This record gives sequence, C-alpha cells and structure tokens, in this order.
Amino acid sequence: MTNTLARFGAAAIFALLSGLAQTHAQTAGSTAPGGDPVLIEDIVIGSRILADFGVVDGFGHVSARHPTNPNRFLMSRSLAPALVAASDIMEFDLDGNAVDARGRAVFLERFIHSEIYKARPDVMAVVHTHSLGVIPFTVSQVTLRPMYHNAAFLSAGAPVWDIRKGFGETDMLVRDGARGKSLAEMLGDKSVVLMRGHGDVTVGPSVRIAVFRAYYTDIDAKLQSQAIALGGDVNYLTPEEGAKADTVNLAVLDRVWNLWKLRVAPTLAK
Amino acid sequence: MTNTLARFGAAAIFALLSGLAQTHAQTAGSTAPGGDPVLIEDIVIGSRILADFGVVDGFGHVSARHPTNPNRFLMSRSLAPALVAASDIMEFDLDGNAVDARGRAVFLERFIHSEIYKARPDVMAVVHTHSLGVIPFTVSQVTLRPMYHNAAFLSAGAPVWDIRKGFGETDMLVRDGARGKSLAEMLGDKSVVLMRGHGDVTVGPSVRIAVFRAYYTDIDAKLQSQAIALGGDVNYLTPEEGAKADTVNLAVLDRVWNLWKLRVAPTLAK
Amino acid sequence: MTNTLARFGAAAIFALLSGLAQTHAQTAGSTAPGGDPVLIEDIVIGSRILADFGVVDGFGHVSARHPTNPNRFLMSRSLAPALVAASDIMEFDLDGNAVDARGRAVFLERFIHSEIYKARPDVMAVVHTHSLGVIPFTVSQVTLRPMYHNAAFLSAGAPVWDIRKGFGETDMLVRDGARGKSLAEMLGDKSVVLMRGHGDVTVGPSVRIAVFRAYYTDIDAKLQSQAIALGGDVNYLTPEEGAKADTVNLAVLDRVWNLWKLRVAPTLAK
Amino acid sequence: MTNTLARFGAAAIFALLSGLAQTHAQTAGSTAPGGDPVLIEDIVIGSRILADFGVVDGFGHVSARHPTNPNRFLMSRSLAPALVAASDIMEFDLDGNAVDARGRAVFLERFIHSEIYKARPDVMAVVHTHSLGVIPFTVSQVTLRPMYHNAAFLSAGAPVWDIRKGFGETDMLVRDGARGKSLAEMLGDKSVVLMRGHGDVTVGPSVRIAVFRAYYTDIDAKLQSQAIALGGDVNYLTPEEGAKADTVNLAVLDRVWNLWKLRVAPTLAK
Repeated sequence: MTNTLARFGAAAIFALLSGLAQTHAQTAGSTAPGGDPVLIEDIVIGSRILADFGVVDGFGHVSARHPTNPNRFLMSRSLAPALVAASDIMEFDLDGNAVDARGRAVFLERFIHSEIYKARPDVMAVVHTHSLGVIPFTVSQVTLRPMYHNAAFLSAGAPVWDIRKGFGETDMLVRDGARGKSLAEMLGDKSVVLMRGHGDVTVGPSVRIAVFRAYYTDIDAKLQSQAIALGGDVNYLTPEEGAKADTVNLAVLDRVWNLWKLRVAPTLAK
Repeated sequence: MTNTLARFGAAAIFALLSGLAQTHAQTAGSTAPGGDPVLIEDIVIGSRILADFGVVDGFGHVSARHPTNPNRFLMSRSLAPALVAASDIMEFDLDGNAVDARGRAVFLERFIHSEIYKARPDVMAVVHTHSLGVIPFTVSQVTLRPMYHNAAFLSAGAPVWDIRKGFGETDMLVRDGARGKSLAEMLGDKSVVLMRGHGDVTVGPSVRIAVFRAYYTDIDAKLQSQAIALGGDVNYLTPEEGAKADTVNLAVLDRVWNLWKLRVAPTLAK
Repeated sequence: MTNTLARFGAAAIFALLSGLAQTHAQTAGSTAPGGDPVLIEDIVIGSRILADFGVVDGFGHVSARHPTNPNRFLMSRSLAPALVAASDIMEFDLDGNAVDARGRAVFLERFIHSEIYKARPDVMAVVHTHSLGVIPFTVSQVTLRPMYHNAAFLSAGAPVWDIRKGFGETDMLVRDGARGKSLAEMLGDKSVVLMRGHGDVTVGPSVRIAVFRAYYTDIDAKLQSQAIALGGDVNYLTPEEGAKADTVNLAVLDRVWNLWKLRVAPTLAK
Repeated sequence: MTNTLARFGAAAIFALLSGLAQTHAQTAGSTAPGGDPVLIEDIVIGSRILADFGVVDGFGHVSARHPTNPNRFLMSRSLAPALVAASDIMEFDLDGNAVDARGRAVFLERFIHSEIYKARPDVMAVVHTHSLGVIPFTVSQVTLRPMYHNAAFLSAGAPVWDIRKGFGETDMLVRDGARGKSLAEMLGDKSVVLMRGHGDVTVGPSVRIAVFRAYYTDIDAKLQSQAIALGGDVNYLTPEEGAKADTVNLAVLDRVWNLWKLRVAPTLAK
C-alpha cells in the first residue's frame, strides 16, 4: 500500500499503450446509454482506479443509476475493471435485464446493483469488490470498524451478509434478484455491506463517493488488522466523530479523485 | 498485493524492452515441440504472469501435457519463468527424460511434472512455485483453507508433503522419479499439494486453470494469515460451497486470463 | 515497502508526463513567495517523495518557515502532495491567514503548521501525514518506539494527541488555532506527535529533516508491528543511543535525499 | 514482495534514464581499482539489485575482496547503493584506509568489511543492509531460522550482535576497527550476522552469493514472521537439510542472478 502513489508512471504508460486516450476520445463524443459522458467517464475512471490500487483484480464492478431514468442503471458488459471503456457501458432495468444487450455478455452478479437501486432511492452508485483487506473480516467474528477519519463512513456500521443463511450451500454468487434483495436488506441504510467469503459492496450518492468508500474500506480493514495485532484495546472513531468527519470527506473528495484520475488517465487529466 | 494491477505500464515496457513481441512472433510461426502455438504461448504467458505477480521468483515452472501424445509433456529449459519464450520449450517423456535435449539444461525438479502426469490422466498442466504466501503453511500445523470463492478449489483439501518422511535428510528437491511419485501420491485427486519448506504444486485440466490456481493459492494463503491474526474462529467455505463456486470460476477464467495476458504481453493481446 | 527503490523508472516517466521538468523550470526562476527557489523546491520535492513512498496519499502537507520572516510560513494551496509545484506555494502568517490568497483554496488544517511555528522557534519545517504505518499506533495502547538507528529521533518520545480530550466529538480536523495550539502543546519539544484516528506530524530544522522523519516514522511503525507480532520483549534503542544516532542521521541525510529526489525528479537531479 | 518481478519495466526505464548503459560502457573499459571489470560490475549490479528489491534503501553497501591482493577490498565511495557505478568503486586496506581517496567521501562503516576480510580468509564478498524483514529479529528474542531451501544457508545459524554489550551506549555504527572486529567475532564461521537495532551482514565466496544471501535473508525473515503469526510450532529446515540445500542453491545461482541483472540493467544483459 505504501507504493500506491509511486506508480503514476506505470499507469501513464498503460494509458498510452492500452489506448485509454482513444477511450476517452470516444467518451467525449460518446453516444453511450445514459447520454452523460461525464457520468460514464466516472464509471470508466472509477473501475480503472480500483484496479490500479488492486482493490479489484480481474473481478468486481462499478455502476451508476441512470441520470434521468431512476429505474435504470449503467454498468459495463462482463469485463475486467481495468479494461472497461465508455463503449462497454450498458443500460439495465432494476430487475437486472439488459435494455439493449446486442449479444454482449453481462455480469452474473448484476443483481447486487439492481436490487440495491430498487431498495435505496438515495443510492446513485454501487461498487462491488473482492477487496483483499476486507475479505478476512467477511469470515471473522471481528467487526470492521473506523480506524481514522478517511474511513469515517464505517462508523454507521458495516454488516456481514452470509449467503448461506438464506440460500444454503451455494456457489456464493448473487446471481438472481432474490439474493440481491437479501443483500440489499442487510445493507439497510448503511454505506457498506460485507459478503462472507466473497468481498464487499459500497454505495453512495455518486460514483466518486462509492469508489472513495471502496478504496478506504480496503485501507481501513488493513489498518484495523495491524492495530489488533499490536494487542490491547483499539480506540475507534465514535459514531458522532464518524458522522462529522464523513461530511468533510465528501467535501474534499475531488482533491483525491483528480489525483487518482491522473494515475489512470494522465492524458485525459491534463 | 494491492498494487498488482497498477503495473500494466511496467509490464508493457518490459514487453517491449525484453523483446517479448518478437518472442510471440516466434510463437506464431513456432516449430516448437507439441506443434500447438496456442498451448506453447499459454506456457510462456503463464510463466510470465506468475513472475509478474511474484508468485514465482527466479525459480518455479509451468508445464503442459503434450496435446496429442499423453505420454509426453512440454516444459521450458532451465530458465527463470519471467524469461521463458516459446523457443525455450522442450519435450519430455513421463520419466522426465528430454526427448530432444540438444545440450539444453533441464530443470532438476522436472520429476514433479512427469510423475503427476503419470499418476493423473486428467491433469493437463502442472505449476510449481515457491509462493511466499504459501510457504508459511508448508511448515505450520495450520491447514490451508478456502477463504473465498476465487480459491474454491482449496475446499477439496491441500495436503502437505514432507520429503523427510520418505527420504530422510535431503536437499529438499524432487530430483528423481521416486520423490516425484511420492509427491504425486500425496497430491492424490486434489488440485494443490504443499511441499514442506519448499513451495507448492497446482494442477488442472489446462495451463490457464493451473496458473489461476497457483495465483489464488498464494492470495488465499495471505488472506487466511490475516484472518487468523484477527483472532477467533474463521468461517471458511464449506466443501459443497467450494465445489459449486469452483465450477463458476472455471467458466469465467478467460476474463482474468486476458487481463493478465495484457499485463505481460500488451502488444500480443491487442 | 521492499519495492520502493524499484520504481525510479515509473517516477521518472511520471516526471516527464506530468511536466515536472517544467515545474522545476518554473522553480528555478521562481518568483514565488519566500523568494528562495531551493527552499520552495524542497517543499515540492518533499511532497512528491512522501507521495511516491505512499507516506501521504491524496491528503497531507509539507510546509517551511519563511527563510527571512520567522512570522510567516510557506505551504501549498489545497492540492494532493503528488501534484504540488512551485507555483502552488503560498505564504501564511502564524494565525494561518493567507497573505496573498488570490482566490486559491487553502488547507483546512493549516493550523497544524501555524501553531507549531508559533510554539517552536527552532522548527523550520512541518510535515503532516496519514501514514498507514503510524495510524494503528494512534489508536493503540502500544507506544511507538525506535526500532533502529534510522528512526533514532523517536527515542525522545512520540506522544499521541487525542482531539476528543480537549474538543469533544469533532470531525477530527485541526481546523482552527485552538486545536493547533493544543496539538503543538502535546508535541512539546519532540520531533513527532501522533494524532488519534488521524495520522502524525513531524518537525525539524529543515524540510529535508522533517520529510526524513515522516518517512522513517512510517517505516519504524511497520517494523515495530512486526517485532511485536513475533512475541516476547522487544529490545528498543535507548534514549542515549537514540540521541547519538540521530546526530549521525542528520549528517548523512543528503545521501538519501538526493536518492529520493532522483526518484521523483530525475530530470532535475541530473 | 509479491510485486518484485512485476517491475522489469520500471527498472529498464530507470536504466535508460539514469544512464546505467553508460555506466556499463565505463565498466567495460574500466581502469577502476582491482582491474577486474566483471568483479566491479558485480558490485555495481549487486548494489542496484538490493536497492531494486528494497533490501537496501539509501543506506547499505556491497564490497568484494581484491581479486589479486587479499589484503585489499573494493567498495563504493559513500553513495546510495542504487546510484553506485563502476567509477565510484574505491580500494581499501584491511584497516579500512582508502588506498587512493582523491578526496572522495568514504562509508563510516567500512570497518564492517575490513575486519571481516581480516578474520575470514574464505570470505570474498560482504553485504551490509538495513533489511526491513530482518530488523524485527535483531531486537527480538526470536531466532531467525531457515523457512525453506532458498534460505538454507541460515541453517548454520544467524547470531545477533549487540553493540551495547561491548561498547555501551553508542550511535549504533561500526565506525572503527574495534567494533568491526567484535562484529566479525560474532559472525564467526557463519554466513549471516544480525546487528541489534541496525540491520545485518551477509558474506560469501563471491559477490553474487553474498547478494543472494542478503536477499533471501530478508525474504526468509518475512516468511518466518508469517509462520509464527499462524500460531503453533514451525517445522524449520534441519541443519543437514540446510547444508545439502545450500550446495544446490550455489549451483543454480546464476539463473536468478541473470534475472536480477536484467531487472537493473536490461541494456547490459542483452
């Protein structure tokens, strides 16, 4: 983790080699669903940021509620997050049906997104990861707690959803609406829900905030593991401290977003 | 580990500087043994992927059973995995003899591969690593267990082979058929076997699957170490969950393989 | 952390892509406040070094007391440390007021700096980070101690400031002079103060020394965590050993500073 | 550590940007002391490898006994290991005096090297590091032990030297012959000695072997920390296994050396 900011160069080179610049040329004049190039670019950039930091590997996804039709959401076709481009973004209804599939493969777990958008009108973006920091907490009796102000949103709680409780011995995937609904119920009014033996989901009022929360949930989990390993009690943020600090985080979010965007798309960020 | 996807750029540059592009030009028109350029490329790409992620360092190897002659297998000459090219692939019989050595140095531990191919007709690929995540489990009383669905294949078990039990105080290497046979017996019908004070071996029905398993065995071991450090019981995947999840992993494998391939051979992946 | 020196290349590329070279061209002929291009360059380079090592992420700041007016200090406008350039440096008085804001956004937590400069005439530079190594110690009952000679400055002590003690349930930020004064009082005559659930502050007689201390505070914390995890007593540096070793560190500081400078600005370092 | 092999690209770029190619041009026709370009190149490459892997940071050094005069050794002027070039190599006598200083700054701790060469006629190379993996073991009651065959040389033992025992409260540095002699006595006939609150020293019959041992001492320490954290007994290599495995390691050393050399000097390795 100490190296994350050391790799602008690599990300920059990747941007050039992988044709991200072109990707954004496409984005600029995009006729992609949603008709909002900035929103679609946030999904693309957010997916690449989480891949760049290793919060997602070949799996995981970032989605956004449709800007003008609250009963639709935007999400990439089935593709590794690091490779998502504007032209890969598809439109889905809140039952997880692709509005215009055109034969493109879709994510098995799109129901994570559709059911949360259905249950949470306030949620405008959803991120699903297999965060390596978080996974130990999904199978532990230890609760994920806020270690510092950047992860203040955790002070509202981060419940663990165990698919086995409602669905028995499964392939662990949220592959239908019933499983997605159950996950959304465990999320409740929180910003984060952990999935036993699987990963986590973060939500927010914008793609940037959901991505920010996915990133700092991973960091916070690693910090909490270190604090516990030191032994003795850990002095976590209180709910009131967390609520107040979270407000500030959202206000200064663009400072870090612009930095992260430069990591994955330097040519664009200029 | 959080940085693994952050380094496309570096890998891309390496591809150009180290002449990987040429390597693949060779691969395309390869007259290498096995006569299957795609299979040979998978061995090359798989070796470089595991090196790129640090699952192997200067040591370790990836092999494949000969596509048309089940009594033969394909493996690089003695060379660091990061440097393996199509022209380095040699053909061996199931006693570990090079069919056409032409003076090339061979791996001392090729018997890991030959004896597993002999004992397991279903196995089409074998990977040997000194995975840093796994080594602690090779000398511990703690059993490696599946932490999440990506490592579901571990739910069938990952036994530890101690060379000392059958062969006394050795140099720890599987340098002959007898040691290879003993290791293959400990592997049994599993996908992974750990080697005390040495590393591990993963197998599968294809190079891509054996490499996938080598990668996620390393990740899972690191996650399990973190979960144990948190204290309290750990809620591992059940055998049935593991069996079901593994089926899905194999179905979506190419999504992550194509991503990894781009890491080490961007010019090829285009 | 084992990889930090492996990334000159990435940093070099970043330097070129992000126009750092130009930045330094600006620096050379800078008319920035303070009128000392070398001092301003140290703030720029120090900010980028800490970002390059991940000691700071999108947040954190480096400041220096004005070279000719001890009642002023120099600090970037509100910006991610990795992106700070000479032209971003602003001048502030010791109440944290921008002397010539020209509409530029300023850091909420500039009072960390202003109050320490007020309380500590010997301090010529201040660094604030959310160091991932340190944060566990800010919420732990375990005291941060010097593990080795490079972190000898810790032998004088590294107290933990808990904002809640003096200010109740807050947003955790040092957003006014009263909070800054309280933090400065906890720092006392030390080189480092930890901030509960937030990060740390290091100070020194120069930017280079304050940055050196921020870096080795992060490293030392990670080393101490490892030593504690081994179990048994840990044999820390004694106060007298620490005092003697610190003197040597300051004498050889430029050897490592010049290396770090090359990491983030190779074109300049030539 | 999982990322070490992922960064050929960065190292390659660094090689180009930092003029390493030229460095080696110089090396080729070098008139440096010792008159052995290959030996001097090994010191240069070894220094850069250890920096590239983070086994050394801005501090640490690699030396070699003079190939024709056993009462002399070769070592860089005072410089960060990552920046050492052939033209920086100086010649010293076994009392640590520079034979031809020409005003160049020398390392304070050259006595680590001089006294070991004096005490150990079999030693042809010495490496000193502040290895982050090892430092916790230098202040712990837990003994560093061989986890796997690549670190087999540890089976002979890795004693800890505490400067305080012989010299009281010091600046921790081996800054004279008496301290060097005491350290050499603690090393005895071993390949590794740890230095409390400081780092370690590895020795060998060649630069490549001493560097190999410095690298795997760091890796082994990290692996042992992980194994201990799992709880329960750890099944280390036995002395006889270690002795046998070490013989093999030395025989296959060039496979990994050539890989590492490519990391730091791709243009040269071609």
